Amino acid sequence: MLTRIDHIGIACHDLDATVEFYRSTYGFEVFHTEVNEEQGVREAMLKINETSDGGASYLQLLEPTREDSAVGKWLAKNGEGVHHLAFGTADVDQDAADIREKGVRVLYDEPRKGSMGSRITFLHPKDCHGVLTELVTSAPEESAEH
Amino acid sequence: MLTRIDHIGIACHDLDATVEFYRSTYGFEVFHTEVNEEQGVREAMLKINETSDGGASYLQLLEPTREDSAVGKWLAKNGEGVHHLAFGTADVDQDAADIREKGVRVLYDEPRKGSMGSRITFLHPKDCHGVLTELVTSAPEESAEH
Repeated sequence: MLTRIDHIGIACHDLDATVEFYRSTYGFEVFHTEVNEEQGVREAMLKINETSDGGASYLQLLEPTREDSAVGKWLAKNGEGVHHLAFGTADVDQDAADIREKGVRVLYDEPRKGSMGSRITFLHPKDCHGVLTELVTSAPEESAEH
Repeated sequence: MLTRIDHIGIACHDLDATVEFYRSTYGFEVFHTEVNEEQGVREAMLKINETSDGGASYLQLLEPTREDSAVGKWLAKNGEGVHHLAFGTADVDQDAADIREKGVRVLYDEPRKGSMGSRITFLHPKDCHGVLTELVTSAPEESAEH
């Protein structure tokens, strides 16, 4: 069951400049940064609020590390902006299976590694009214109340 | 101060079909519907989680009521997808003034009426790394813990 907005993924050309925009304009601070070589992105997570399921909602700022990554190709076509929307669940495997059963295309056979040790999968935007949709199960230490 | 992700605004061609997609795929239910003639939209709010500032995060599904509305023109150009991102604040007037002072274009001189009696304004996407950004102060009865 999807129990929170986990994050909004925002594609940008220059991660440092975009982090600085969010800090200086709104006061949002970086909670975590990492490079995900599999996804081909360098990213910063800005924690905005905690959520009633014991998790949190973040902005995920994404700069491609290579032009042929999914985010790199999306940026070349669309320019900077909202790239995807992610919902948090305690069980991404079960939810992905249930949603696939309903005829929505799930992009990975098995969940892959996401931010902060999470496990993630994506749903095809053409099956989701134009929204590239991610499902996320946080790493055990992240899903606890904190 | 912006204290939560208030909602993600998603533009769609057919509100009823999109509501049904979110209900049947994820189990999300409609919390509120309304028509905003000034914005030229018919909308449904789906509540996803409550937030640590005493508010909540929603998906806001938006169908234009006329082709020349902002959402109607955006849909004609982009197709269905994420239209804007909204942050919640206790004082949209103060935050809008502070942000304007920093050189970001605020689209309204004074906040206007948003969903569920809220007061809203928008920031120019070209000043926000491609993200059409809304600031929202909930109506008094909505901002209380519930």
